[in-house]
Amino acid sequence: MQAARLHKYDPSIPKQSLQIEDIPEPTIQGPMDVIVRIGAAGLCRTDIHIVEGQWAPITGMELPYVLGHENSGWVEEVGPGVTNVAPGDTVMVHPLITCGLCRACRAGDDMHCENSAFPGIDSDGGMAQLLRTSARSCVKLDPILQPKDIAALADAGLTAYHAVRKSVPHLYAGTKAVVIGAGGLGHIGIQCLKALTPAEIIVVDPNEKALALASEWGADQTVQVGDGYLDTIMEMTDGKGAEVVFDYVGERGAEDDAWKMTRRAGYHYVIGYGGTVEVPTIDIISSERNVIGNLVGTYNDLAELMILTAQGKVSLHTSTYPLDAVNDAIQDLNTGNLQGRGILIPEGAEA
Amino acid sequence: MQAARLHKYDPSIPKQSLQIEDIPEPTIQGPMDVIVRIGAAGLCRTDIHIVEGQWAPITGMELPYVLGHENSGWVEEVGPGVTNVAPGDTVMVHPLITCGLCRACRAGDDMHCENSAFPGIDSDGGMAQLLRTSARSCVKLDPILQPKDIAALADAGLTAYHAVRKSVPHLYAGTKAVVIGAGGLGHIGIQCLKALTPAEIIVVDPNEKALALASEWGADQTVQVGDGYLDTIMEMTDGKGAEVVFDYVGERGAEDDAWKMTRRAGYHYVIGYGGTVEVPTIDIISSERNVIGNLVGTYNDLAELMILTAQGKVSLHTSTYPLDAVNDAIQDLNTGNLQGRGILIPEGAEA
Amino acid sequence: MQAARLHKYDPSIPKQSLQIEDIPEPTIQGPMDVIVRIGAAGLCRTDIHIVEGQWAPITGMELPYVLGHENSGWVEEVGPGVTNVAPGDTVMVHPLITCGLCRACRAGDDMHCENSAFPGIDSDGGMAQLLRTSARSCVKLDPILQPKDIAALADAGLTAYHAVRKSVPHLYAGTKAVVIGAGGLGHIGIQCLKALTPAEIIVVDPNEKALALASEWGADQTVQVGDGYLDTIMEMTDGKGAEVVFDYVGERGAEDDAWKMTRRAGYHYVIGYGGTVEVPTIDIISSERNVIGNLVGTYNDLAELMILTAQGKVSLHTSTYPLDAVNDAIQDLNTGNLQGRGILIPEGAEA
Amino acid sequence: MQAARLHKYDPSIPKQSLQIEDIPEPTIQGPMDVIVRIGAAGLCRTDIHIVEGQWAPITGMELPYVLGHENSGWVEEVGPGVTNVAPGDTVMVHPLITCGLCRACRAGDDMHCENSAFPGIDSDGGMAQLLRTSARSCVKLDPILQPKDIAALADAGLTAYHAVRKSVPHLYAGTKAVVIGAGGLGHIGIQCLKALTPAEIIVVDPNEKALALASEWGADQTVQVGDGYLDTIMEMTDGKGAEVVFDYVGERGAEDDAWKMTRRAGYHYVIGYGGTVEVPTIDIISSERNVIGNLVGTYNDLAELMILTAQGKVSLHTSTYPLDAVNDAIQDLNTGNLQGRGILIPEGAEA
Repeated sequence: MQAARLHKYDPSIPKQSLQIEDIPEPTIQGPMDVIVRIGAAGLCRTDIHIVEGQWAPITGMELPYVLGHENSGWVEEVGPGVTNVAPGDTVMVHPLITCGLCRACRAGDDMHCENSAFPGIDSDGGMAQLLRTSARSCVKLDPILQPKDIAALADAGLTAYHAVRKSVPHLYAGTKAVVIGAGGLGHIGIQCLKALTPAEIIVVDPNEKALALASEWGADQTVQVGDGYLDTIMEMTDGKGAEVVFDYVGERGAEDDAWKMTRRAGYHYVIGYGGTVEVPTIDIISSERNVIGNLVGTYNDLAELMILTAQGKVSLHTSTYPLDAVNDAIQDLNTGNLQGRGILIPEGAEA
Repeated sequence: MQAARLHKYDPSIPKQSLQIEDIPEPTIQGPMDVIVRIGAAGLCRTDIHIVEGQWAPITGMELPYVLGHENSGWVEEVGPGVTNVAPGDTVMVHPLITCGLCRACRAGDDMHCENSAFPGIDSDGGMAQLLRTSARSCVKLDPILQPKDIAALADAGLTAYHAVRKSVPHLYAGTKAVVIGAGGLGHIGIQCLKALTPAEIIVVDPNEKALALASEWGADQTVQVGDGYLDTIMEMTDGKGAEVVFDYVGERGAEDDAWKMTRRAGYHYVIGYGGTVEVPTIDIISSERNVIGNLVGTYNDLAELMILTAQGKVSLHTSTYPLDAVNDAIQDLNTGNLQGRGILIPEGAEA
Repeated sequence: MQAARLHKYDPSIPKQSLQIEDIPEPTIQGPMDVIVRIGAAGLCRTDIHIVEGQWAPITGMELPYVLGHENSGWVEEVGPGVTNVAPGDTVMVHPLITCGLCRACRAGDDMHCENSAFPGIDSDGGMAQLLRTSARSCVKLDPILQPKDIAALADAGLTAYHAVRKSVPHLYAGTKAVVIGAGGLGHIGIQCLKALTPAEIIVVDPNEKALALASEWGADQTVQVGDGYLDTIMEMTDGKGAEVVFDYVGERGAEDDAWKMTRRAGYHYVIGYGGTVEVPTIDIISSERNVIGNLVGTYNDLAELMILTAQGKVSLHTSTYPLDAVNDAIQDLNTGNLQGRGILIPEGAEA
Repeated sequence: MQAARLHKYDPSIPKQSLQIEDIPEPTIQGPMDVIVRIGAAGLCRTDIHIVEGQWAPITGMELPYVLGHENSGWVEEVGPGVTNVAPGDTVMVHPLITCGLCRACRAGDDMHCENSAFPGIDSDGGMAQLLRTSARSCVKLDPILQPKDIAALADAGLTAYHAVRKSVPHLYAGTKAVVIGAGGLGHIGIQCLKALTPAEIIVVDPNEKALALASEWGADQTVQVGDGYLDTIMEMTDGKGAEVVFDYVGERGAEDDAWKMTRRAGYHYVIGYGGTVEVPTIDIISSERNVIGNLVGTYNDLAELMILTAQGKVSLHTSTYPLDAVNDAIQDLNTGNLQGRGILIPEGAEA
């Protein structure tokens, strides 16, 4: 089958980051396995970080392997123990394969499953025609939904939703939320904030066009990154900072600014990554601020997000590429020329 | 009256850090003011950090002023609007003076009062014979209680309790808590953990004697800081780290180690300070760990801690000095020769 | 001054339930007292229950006294200790006078203050030209706001908001909320649900016109009370019932139906009253359902509700009467002829 | 194999409530099935309620069937998909068989699984030599543990623990908890309260001997049910009632008294059953009290309880009977002559 594989880490993000090649199809190996025919695979900034080699020390993956951790499509084949989906079903694929037996899975924190796999990160992913996943990872969808319209919700959307859902107790009427980065994750985060909280939403981005779109998605105020923009945000928050700051960037200074614009007793949510949070302990304790890590969401989070999508409260802004143009998509994402989320369509995929 | 005042910041913590001198007595200035005759004032590592000048940029205090933010004694005089205490009452003094009208005060977060004062840090404190505070800061006690036995609970104990109380939802049966630092705060933290949670308690300290005492206070396991001690803790936590790590030191490397021994989805509580927390954002997001700031507790926290004390579940380990020996106490604390909390007794104080 | 007083309990709700009479003006008695010139006083179903005598055994009030616990107006005079408001300020009056010193006040649960008064229920209220309240009860408003447009938010709105705010953790995307009663409280509850949660809102009422209005305020589905209506609701909730049922009626069978339409592990919120909840313990335990009491909200709840109002997310549907027509208003409310909330305007009140 | 089956509902609890008979052994039917050789089966008041017919309308079970929902033993045989336990393992059996795929299972509320079975209630249970359960229901134990010492924790203990665990946020230092009924569930509840909270524990029972035992298990105060006992409890709680009342009886008036001794804003936990909770809505709303349903606990609850047991914080008080004496045990339980939990040992069971 057609697949996009990484053969070499390269921090320069070369023009041919991935190779399009023909590889053997995945097969059912366990009773709960599910093979999904990919309708669409999302491209994520994490894919760039994988190409750069940032994830190598964490996953220890041997190259080459297929990237792609935002997948949606139709069930092709199921293992003998699978009862919740059947061939032909339209499905959203939760990015993690989880065991269902460990404490985390049983506690509703399946993203911390002690026996998980993360196809596209630590095993073959969905930038291909077929993907092997498990029954526990399939969210069955209404067949009228098109994978290309929703695939990017599988990870980017799910991560943005998960962070916003965790913040609900802190964002009551009268509070302010700052969203740093109105890109692929941020624009979903803005819509989720609007759907789940009455907070006033301030969106920060260097890109004027992104800010204009942010206003359409629900931003109450927008601030262009530039000299003195931090002062602007402090003024908008009565000199106190915001109750919750969502940093969807996590590098190039955003991680410092995020902390600075967090209010006393407030929360600095780290979602994007690449940089380093560096804060004197005296600042942490004297203001009782918190730094909150955010990983991808749970299966239930994904099911909830699908409901918000069905209700029209969340929609994706996408740019579509054929799978064999994945390297163009990567370049566009890396140079800031990709608006919304990049979606890759394998050869022959159709609704 | 007799008082111990700071006249000069000095990072070297000189032998005469404070001056014992005779200054005018405080007087009632507002209807809710209360003058307390100090029975005992606790000495805290924060006093050393104040002498060093660490707090100067935060408080902007003009020198000289009276230190001492852990105070207990007897009511001497009250303003015309005070109804909850009367002259002669034994009281514990909450370290903050709060307004009772702002959102934080009304939400049960009075340590984030928007109009607060912190005597001993940003105004004259209790290392003196008399202290001016407010009605809202007085916790009325059973007259059989002795200020010298409890004064250090006013801030050190309150801070330790506040952090532990916040952690209760995370410390269910089967979890592990690491306590870094079995000193003045840590030894109260250990007892509070024992009283409020079923977690297994692992205590870390460089001092063997402190660890022996930690076992008496309720530590299930102790680890002496030294080469490879981090490995020992990882082994004790099945290679995963602890659900909550309480860092009562916050400097000299403890702040790094605390993060490293925090489990996936776990909490690194910063309580001590002096150093800097420095963590790559990829580590924060890939493990979904959290850094939690901890300030002093609320008035209700203090009232609860007084109940635990009355129930015999928390007791203080103290070393007593006359107020005019405050500089000896400071030296002992700074050189690690002060076991438990230092307590200063002004001239003429008696039960 | 002009005031409407209750002289006699009468379950028949006679045409002259209250007497309009001239009584002495209230005066400042304590340092924190505030006299408010009433701009508007809301009429509430509780006023009818007071006239009926339902509250007599609870309050033990001696007659006659002035009713009216939903008050807004302008500060007329303040006690010597009052700093947060000044004569001329437009204010919303929180219905409770609270002490600010007890555990409940300090924990953010001031509606459970141990030393509270409830003017209009257990002391003279605001169906008059002047009302005595306290500094802690005054929410300062933008002077462009008109008391007559917001007065009913002081208690009815606050109660509806408080219940909805408590339910937020239970009403995530994909859940269903049933609102029983689209009247004075219910119509605010619907708007608050819309503002704070992504739940699907099903509104139940016997009155067709009320249901039509409910749809405008944000109901996703409406059901007219009548034969088989309970079956309709069970169908709308996949035979499982709703995660949260808000019973704004609490009598005439609504209290039974509310329980029946509550899902396993769900919450039956009691807000209206008059009837009796009667449930076999085996039903309670085998389904793990909960019955949740709901009183008026806190001061912070009221401040939040004012923000939602200012943001245009909550608006009141009102019918205005001069204060001396209070008995007509009572009859209209009792016979179901009062749409939205009844608002009483004392003689001479003006913005 | 030997089994105890119910052939006829009879509210009089006849001397031969169950029949000891020889029936076919259960067999593996699905890939996740596990056959457990029963070491011990607990006898529960619910078994009496089943015999009475109270559960018949809820389960719609056809008679005869094997009772017994508190089971522990050793794995005898496993289905082809089972990986977490193997023949010979000592296991505690969670009373529910759950699917692991529905929202409740994935949210950590597996006791609300939408596809669950409850052996011993709605299918054949463990009062027999062998029991069929599923991999998801097995908690693997240290082989030195003896089924007869812990079996009753599977449901009675789990239910008591679940209720206490839910109450932790309400039972901070200085609060009071009333435990009604110091029998089979109550005595575990008392120990769990002691292990998880700093609350003062007041235990209520008609039986003097049970109260004496309650003191050994951790009760701070005990009250014998009798004339005026409710007044005694109100005095012990400063006239306010307790923050949480655990009603392990739920019938014969306990359900009324439990409500009356619940404090404003407090929680009445219904755990025992048989009676009816009947409360005027005005009492519910004017005090904002809550009635909380409590079902059996989750798998994680059971794992936590096993840890408390291993730590020596919870131990069972039991009376052992051979399985063929089950009817004697039922009579003893019904007449109040069974101290602690009744444990049934099938023929030939051994560690």
